[in-house]
Amino acid sequence: VALAGKLLGVRVTIVMPEDAPAVKIEATRGYGAEIVLYDKRKEVREEVAERTARERGLTMIPPFDHVQVIAGQGTAAKELIEDAGPLDFLFVPVSGGGLISGCAVAASHLSPGCKVIGVEPEAGDDATRSFRTKTLQSCRNPDTIADGARTHSLGKLTFPLVLRYVYDMVTVSDAELARAMLCLWERMKIIVEPTGALGAAGLFERGLPVGGKRVGVILSGGNADFKLIAKYF
Amino acid sequence: VALAGKLLGVRVTIVMPEDAPAVKIEATRGYGAEIVLYDKRKEVREEVAERTARERGLTMIPPFDHVQVIAGQGTAAKELIEDAGPLDFLFVPVSGGGLISGCAVAASHLSPGCKVIGVEPEAGDDATRSFRTKTLQSCRNPDTIADGARTHSLGKLTFPLVLRYVYDMVTVSDAELARAMLCLWERMKIIVEPTGALGAAGLFERGLPVGGKRVGVILSGGNADFKLIAKYF
Repeated sequence: VALAGKLLGVRVTIVMPEDAPAVKIEATRGYGAEIVLYDKRKEVREEVAERTARERGLTMIPPFDHVQVIAGQGTAAKELIEDAGPLDFLFVPVSGGGLISGCAVAASHLSPGCKVIGVEPEAGDDATRSFRTKTLQSCRNPDTIADGARTHSLGKLTFPLVLRYVYDMVTVSDAELARAMLCLWERMKIIVEPTGALGAAGLFERGLPVGGKRVGVILSGGNADFKLIAKYF
Repeated sequence: VALAGKLLGVRVTIVMPEDAPAVKIEATRGYGAEIVLYDKRKEVREEVAERTARERGLTMIPPFDHVQVIAGQGTAAKELIEDAGPLDFLFVPVSGGGLISGCAVAASHLSPGCKVIGVEPEAGDDATRSFRTKTLQSCRNPDTIADGARTHSLGKLTFPLVLRYVYDMVTVSDAELARAMLCLWERMKIIVEPTGALGAAGLFERGLPVGGKRVGVILSGGNADFKLIAKYF
């Protein structure tokens, strides 16, 4: 968003928790955005963002619960299937559900029968519980290395899309997630942040019956803070 | 070499120091090569490799001092210049000098006037001293994070090529090298091992007059051992 604003000449303000990865904060500032930090133990980011937008007369860009955001995030699966052909499985990271909603909608049209598997961190398993119980569940500031998946719950738009289009949900521990991420770094030479490696961790660690199948994995986000992550190795 | 051997059905034996990055040893074994480890405090790798080749009747593939190896490594600069057009500067990591010899020869033909700058770790500055004094200098098992640049000296073929085609040599400290590498990882999302980041470190840290110029950097090698490197952050 910061880069888009810079390219389009639009002033951008971004709300982030104080403990966001330093590399993300620096990169966002580097693209010219103003950053509003908040203490996530005391405030909820949606409230901080809404208050900031109201006070300053800004247009709010929500992180996931918006049809255009969902559609845009779904282009990841669209491009993957267009490049790779039909899939049997597609593993997707889940936080607020925008990415998986868009990807699952895209897969259902472009690769009917593809089983879309959502992957969450164990500590922030609200979407998995929501999926199982068919009732929206939440969690508050889950403690996980997957800092992008600390969202409290699925959204008004994404929850019904997840129920309708997603085949199953699984969770992974932080240790499993760190292991999967290190494999992506060391063997595939791709920098993926913990949250972005959730799909790969679900594939590597949950032993789903994918042998001989055509499997896609959405990798998403490269704001890896090496100084923070090093302690997990 | 291990992968090439696997693809071609040729048995491969690789000589590595005991303290080579674990990821490199595992990946090489994973490609089906046999690995001969040696203690670099007691033995010299060229001697270990020659003895192993003699005892087992193997053909030796030297790491840098061979015309075909030099020509092959020079394709890095050839492809870069073909893609990007003529350059004013080209920064290249230097260990045994194969990569920079090939790249400098390629640049001299495809981009005449391009200044090729070789970059070495401070602790293993034998090529820089050789370049300055025009006499082959060596160092023994230099202590540097750039494990691929611990070669003792330039070779019989590479030293005259470096003297003839390289414009200048610079050195970087391990701290500068780690900083440059982290920048490549965090901002460019490219996994480059310390040795492979030498060229970038020379560009970022030495303050050469490159403003407004067309600058190329050869990045080489992604066998980064995160557990080892984490201590430099």
